[in-house]
Amino acid sequence: MALIPHWIQHYPRHHLRDDVLAGLVLTVLVIPQSLAYALLAGLPPQAGLYVSILPAIAYALLGSSMVQAVGPVAITAIMTYSVLSPIAQPGSAHYIQLAAWLSLSSGLLIAACGVARLGFLSQLLSRPVVSGFVAGSAVLIMVSQAKFILGVEVHGNSTGQTLRLMAQQLPNTNQVTLMLGLASIAALTIARVGLKRWPVWMRLSPLLVLLVSTLIVSSLDLDSKHAVAVVGTIRLDGMSQVFTLPELASLQALAGPTLLISFIGMVQCITMAQALAVKRRERVDANRELTGLGAANIAAAFSGGMPVGGGLSRSAINVAAGAQTPLAGVVSGLSMVVLVLVGTEWLTKLPLAVLAASIVVAAWGMIDVRALRQAWGYDRADAIAWLGTALGVITLGLDTGIAMGIGLSLATLLWRSSAPHIAVLGRLPGTSTFRNVERYETETLPHALLLRIDESLFFGNLQAVEARLSQELRQSEQVEDVVLVMTAVNRVDTSAMEVLEDINRDLRERGIKLHFAEVKGPVQDRLMHTELWTGLSGQVFPSVSQAFQTLQSKRLPAADAALAI
Amino acid sequence: MALIPHWIQHYPRHHLRDDVLAGLVLTVLVIPQSLAYALLAGLPPQAGLYVSILPAIAYALLGSSMVQAVGPVAITAIMTYSVLSPIAQPGSAHYIQLAAWLSLSSGLLIAACGVARLGFLSQLLSRPVVSGFVAGSAVLIMVSQAKFILGVEVHGNSTGQTLRLMAQQLPNTNQVTLMLGLASIAALTIARVGLKRWPVWMRLSPLLVLLVSTLIVSSLDLDSKHAVAVVGTIRLDGMSQVFTLPELASLQALAGPTLLISFIGMVQCITMAQALAVKRRERVDANRELTGLGAANIAAAFSGGMPVGGGLSRSAINVAAGAQTPLAGVVSGLSMVVLVLVGTEWLTKLPLAVLAASIVVAAWGMIDVRALRQAWGYDRADAIAWLGTALGVITLGLDTGIAMGIGLSLATLLWRSSAPHIAVLGRLPGTSTFRNVERYETETLPHALLLRIDESLFFGNLQAVEARLSQELRQSEQVEDVVLVMTAVNRVDTSAMEVLEDINRDLRERGIKLHFAEVKGPVQDRLMHTELWTGLSGQVFPSVSQAFQTLQSKRLPAADAALAI
Repeated sequence: MALIPHWIQHYPRHHLRDDVLAGLVLTVLVIPQSLAYALLAGLPPQAGLYVSILPAIAYALLGSSMVQAVGPVAITAIMTYSVLSPIAQPGSAHYIQLAAWLSLSSGLLIAACGVARLGFLSQLLSRPVVSGFVAGSAVLIMVSQAKFILGVEVHGNSTGQTLRLMAQQLPNTNQVTLMLGLASIAALTIARVGLKRWPVWMRLSPLLVLLVSTLIVSSLDLDSKHAVAVVGTIRLDGMSQVFTLPELASLQALAGPTLLISFIGMVQCITMAQALAVKRRERVDANRELTGLGAANIAAAFSGGMPVGGGLSRSAINVAAGAQTPLAGVVSGLSMVVLVLVGTEWLTKLPLAVLAASIVVAAWGMIDVRALRQAWGYDRADAIAWLGTALGVITLGLDTGIAMGIGLSLATLLWRSSAPHIAVLGRLPGTSTFRNVERYETETLPHALLLRIDESLFFGNLQAVEARLSQELRQSEQVEDVVLVMTAVNRVDTSAMEVLEDINRDLRERGIKLHFAEVKGPVQDRLMHTELWTGLSGQVFPSVSQAFQTLQSKRLPAADAALAI
Repeated sequence: MALIPHWIQHYPRHHLRDDVLAGLVLTVLVIPQSLAYALLAGLPPQAGLYVSILPAIAYALLGSSMVQAVGPVAITAIMTYSVLSPIAQPGSAHYIQLAAWLSLSSGLLIAACGVARLGFLSQLLSRPVVSGFVAGSAVLIMVSQAKFILGVEVHGNSTGQTLRLMAQQLPNTNQVTLMLGLASIAALTIARVGLKRWPVWMRLSPLLVLLVSTLIVSSLDLDSKHAVAVVGTIRLDGMSQVFTLPELASLQALAGPTLLISFIGMVQCITMAQALAVKRRERVDANRELTGLGAANIAAAFSGGMPVGGGLSRSAINVAAGAQTPLAGVVSGLSMVVLVLVGTEWLTKLPLAVLAASIVVAAWGMIDVRALRQAWGYDRADAIAWLGTALGVITLGLDTGIAMGIGLSLATLLWRSSAPHIAVLGRLPGTSTFRNVERYETETLPHALLLRIDESLFFGNLQAVEARLSQELRQSEQVEDVVLVMTAVNRVDTSAMEVLEDINRDLRERGIKLHFAEVKGPVQDRLMHTELWTGLSGQVFPSVSQAFQTLQSKRLPAADAALAI
C-alpha cells in the first residue's frame, strides 16, 4: 500500500472539473440523509454533517474504490441505535460518548482485518441473507422513527416494547407534527415514484421537502406555538469535542456490538465497491476497502462520533453527479466544512418529523421483496434463509439476526453440497461418449462400475458418496472394478482423501479394484504424493473411454480383445 | 421405520451361533472399559456395567448398523465429566442424578434429530477437526486420570487448575497405588505393541491385567493396609434407582452440555457406522442411527444413568468376535444382566489405579499424530484446523473446542472455495481442444474472452469471479464477447445467479455480449427460467469449440468464414 494513493500520483487533469463539481453536488444532496441518519442513530442531527467531513477524506486516501461515498448510512445508523439504546438514553452525553467509542473500536477492528487480509470473511453471507437482513433492519428503522412522526416520547429496549409504548402514547400524538410527517411521506413517495424520468428533480426532492417544511415551521412559528420538535441550535463546538474514555463496564458492553457493526460494515462496503467496480472496469482490493473504511471510522470517532459506512444512495448520487476519482470525496468533505462553518442557521427550524419521514421512505425502499420472490422460484432454501434472517432481525434483534443469517448461509451451503449428483455411466452405443444410465440407453460392463461424482469432494458430502457406492455394490455382486470419474471434481480435501484411502483398502480386501478417470490437474497435483495414489489398487485413466476399453478387454480372450473397440 | 427391525424379520438361522458367541465374548471383553469409562465419567464403576445392558438392546432394535456396539465410551465419558464436574462433586448423589438427566435429555434430542432427518448435520466436522478434537479430549482424559494413579484427591474445574492442584498434592502420592498404576500402564502398553500378531491375547490383556491386580490387592490386603482405592462393594439396587428430576437451575445449566454431548454423539455414531458399513457391503441410514443412539441414551438414563455412544474399540471387539447382526448386541446386553446378578464380588478389590491405567493407555492410542502429519503435507489449512481444535479443547474446554472445530471446518471450506481456479482458454492449434493460455501455446481471438471457472458458483466465490473478469477486461480493451465456460460449474446458487444477471446487464451497457458454454444439465434446469437466461445478451453454446467458431466467423467476411475451421 503506497503512502500516496495511486489516483493522486497519476491524477488525470481532465477529470478535475468533473470531480470538483461532483463533490460540491454530493455535499448539497446528502445533507438530508446525513441529518436524518444521525437522528436515526440517536445522535444530534448535526453529527451527521460533521461526520461527512474527515471520514470521507480518510476513505478517499486509503480505500480502493474510485466512486464509493462513505458517510452516515441507514444500516450503520440503526445498528448504532439498537446496540446503544439499551445502555444509554439516546441524545444524552453518555450516549454520545459511547457512539464515538463505537466508531473508534469498530474502525480499529475493520482496519486490522484489512491489514490482516481477512477481507474474504465478508463473503460469509449469501445475497438472500443480506437482503433479508436489510429488510429486517428496514422494519426496525421504520418502527424507530414512528415516534418522531407522532411527536411522542418513547424509549423501548426492543421492537415489541417500543410498539407497545407507542400504542400507549397514541392519545398524546401531536397533530401538527403528524400532519407534517405524513405530508412529507406523501411528497417524498410521489417524488420517488413519479419523477423517475427526471432524475435530477428526483434527487433534489428530499432537499426541497426539507427546505419547504423548514420555511413552514419558521414562518408559522410551529415549534414554539405547537411544540413541533426541530433540530434546534447547532453548536459548532461539537466538532472539537474532547474524546473521553467510557468506564470499563461500558467498554465491555460494547465488545459484542463492535463485532456486529464491524462485520456488517465490512460486508456492505466490499459488496458495494464490487458492484460499482464491475460497471466501471475497475479493480477492487477488498482488504484496502477495509483499511479505508476502518480509517474513516477512526476519523469519525474524533469528529462527530458516529459510525460510518459505504452507502448505496450516497454512492449512487456520487456517480450520478459525475465523480471520476476519490477527489470528489475529498472535495465533498472540504465543502461540508465550509457549509458547517458558514451557514447552518437555516437548519434550526427543520422539523424532526420531516427528517423521520425521509428515513421512513428510504427504509421502505430498502425492502427488496423481488429478491425474495426470485429466490423462492429459483432455490427455495435461499428464500427460507431470507425469511429466517429478516424475521430473526425483527423479533430477536440485529445481532441475533445476523448470527442467524451467517448460520443459514452456511447451513444452506452445507445442505446443498451434502447431496451431490452422482451418476452411474454407460457408453452410448457406437460412440465414445458416456452418459447417465438412468437418462440414456447405454451399454455397460457387468463386472465394472463407472461412477461419476458431480461435486468437489469434501467432508460434507462423503457420507453420500460412500452410501451410493455401497448401494451400487450391493446391487451388483459381480463387480470387480470400480472407476471413479472425476471430471467434475474440482477439489478433494483431506477428509475426502482419507475416505478414498479407506475405500481403496476396503475394496481391495473384497477383491475389487479402485480406478480413477479424468482427474483434474490441480487435484492430481495434490493426490500424487499420497498413499491413496501410490497404493491405488487399480489404474488412473486419462479418459472414461480408455477405462471402458481397458476393462472390457480384461474379460475377453486375447483374440477378441483386438476386435473390441 | 418398521416396528420389527428387518434383521429380526428375516433372521438367517446360520448366523445364530456366531451372534450368540460374539455377544458372550463381547460382554466379557468390555468389562474393563465399561468399568473404566464409568470411572472416567465421575460415576461409580458399576454404572458402566449397568449401562451396557438396556442401551445395547435399544440400539440393536432401532439402529441401522449390523455391528456397531453401543455403550460407555471414552469421549462421551470425558464429556460427561467435564460438563458435570463444575456443577457437582463427582460420585455424589447430585452428580449421579445430573448424569442420568444428561442421558435422558441428550437421548431425546438425538432421537428427535433422527426423526426430523437432521442426520446430515453430523457432517459439519471435517476429519482433521474430528481427529484434533479426539486428540484434545485424550489429553483431557489423561489429565483427569492422573489423580487415580497418584492416589490423591483433586477436584479442579479446568485442565490448568487440575494440573496445579495435582502438583500441590504430589508429596501426598500413595506409593503403592503409583506402583500398581505404572506397572499396569507398562503391561498394557507392552501388550498393545508386542501382541499385535496375536489379537486374541491382545484383546484379553486388559481383562487379565484387571484380574491379576485384583488378586494382588486382595491377597496382600492392599486396600486396608496401604489405602489403595478400590471399586468397593457393588450395590445392586443401583439398577432400579428412582429417576428423580433435578431442580430448575441445574436443568438450565445442563442445556448447553446436552447440545454438546448430543452433537458429538451424533457425529461419532454416524461416522463409525459408515466406516463399518463400507467394509461389510451394508447400508447405513444416518437418521436411523440417531434414533437408535437416542433410544440407547434414554434407556441408559433409567439403568445406570450415564450417556452412551458408539465406540471404536467396542465395535472392533464386536466385529472381531464374529458378530453378524445386532443379535450379538442383544445377547451381550442379556449376558451382562446375568454377570451383574451372579458375580460381581470379584470386582470389589479391583484397584482404581489399574482402571485409570487402562484409560490412560487407551487415550494415548486415541491421539492420531499421523493424521496431523498427513494433513500437513496434503492441505495445510486442514492441519491448522486439527491443531486449532486440539488446542481449543485442551485450553478452553470441550464445548469451546468443538465450537472452534465447527468454525474451523466451515472457515476452511469457505476459504478454499473463495479462491476458485479460473482459466482463460485458448485453442490448441489444429485441434478442437481448449486449454489454459498460461500453461499451453494456444490461439485466441482478440475480441473474445473465454473464461473457464473451475468451481461451483456460490456466494462465497463471487468476488473472485467478478475481480478476475474485471481484470481481464481491463487488460484487453477490444473485447466484445465474454464466454463463461461452465464445464466444471456443478451448481449456481441464488447469489451467483443474481451476480451473473448484474454482469450481463453491466457488460451490455458497455457493448459487450455475455455467452455461456457447456452448461451442465442440472444447472441449466434451474437457470432456464431466470431473467439471466431469457435476457442473456449472447448465446448458449453446447461446446467451447462451437463458441470459438461462431465468434471467429463473426469477424470475417462471409467468404473467409467458410474457410475458417
